[in-house]
Amino acid sequence: MTVLVVFTAKQTGDDLEGYGRMAQRMDELARKMPGFLRIDSARNKDGFGITVSAWESEAHAASWKREAEHLGAQKLGRERWYEHYRVEVAEVTRSYSFKR
Amino acid sequence: MTVLVVFTAKQTGDDLEGYGRMAQRMDELARKMPGFLRIDSARNKDGFGITVSAWESEAHAASWKREAEHLGAQKLGRERWYEHYRVEVAEVTRSYSFKR
Repeated sequence: MTVLVVFTAKQTGDDLEGYGRMAQRMDELARKMPGFLRIDSARNKDGFGITVSAWESEAHAASWKREAEHLGAQKLGRERWYEHYRVEVAEVTRSYSFKR
Repeated sequence: MTVLVVFTAKQTGDDLEGYGRMAQRMDELARKMPGFLRIDSARNKDGFGITVSAWESEAHAASWKREAEHLGAQKLGRERWYEHYRVEVAEVTRSYSFKR
């Protein structure tokens, strides 16, 4: 059963260079975690962004939340980079896709 | 129980003006549907975007999928605007948020 972690966040606008490095590092790290399926991110010019990662189970998603380096990034995010954010963990019940 | 509809899509790059109008119309329409909770969108410069809408139940999310004008937009999306897209419907099991 696929589990999504949906992260919506508004950046403060401070230290964008440091943020970009950290975001890239977290993307790379997530891809190496057990149970990883995929990760996608999009961000508007105003600093509002959405990242969706997909995992094989809730347990895999929870392990990613608790990963040590990721915990450090979450702390920095609260201290420095985000005005606000929301994380939702959700079990996929239906999905469909289209490709041209 | 909150249900998310996670829409990830890559635009073709054609008819961006028509696309922008339609996207705004769908945003307005979703907000008027029964069971609507919220909708957020973010898009990268390369045309990759994520839209997450939240609903009070699966039935409400399903009604939004079948709404007549929205069905028309979905058809136009496949014919004209999207290289590929994925829709995932998912039940929220945990959530947390942060505000500065």
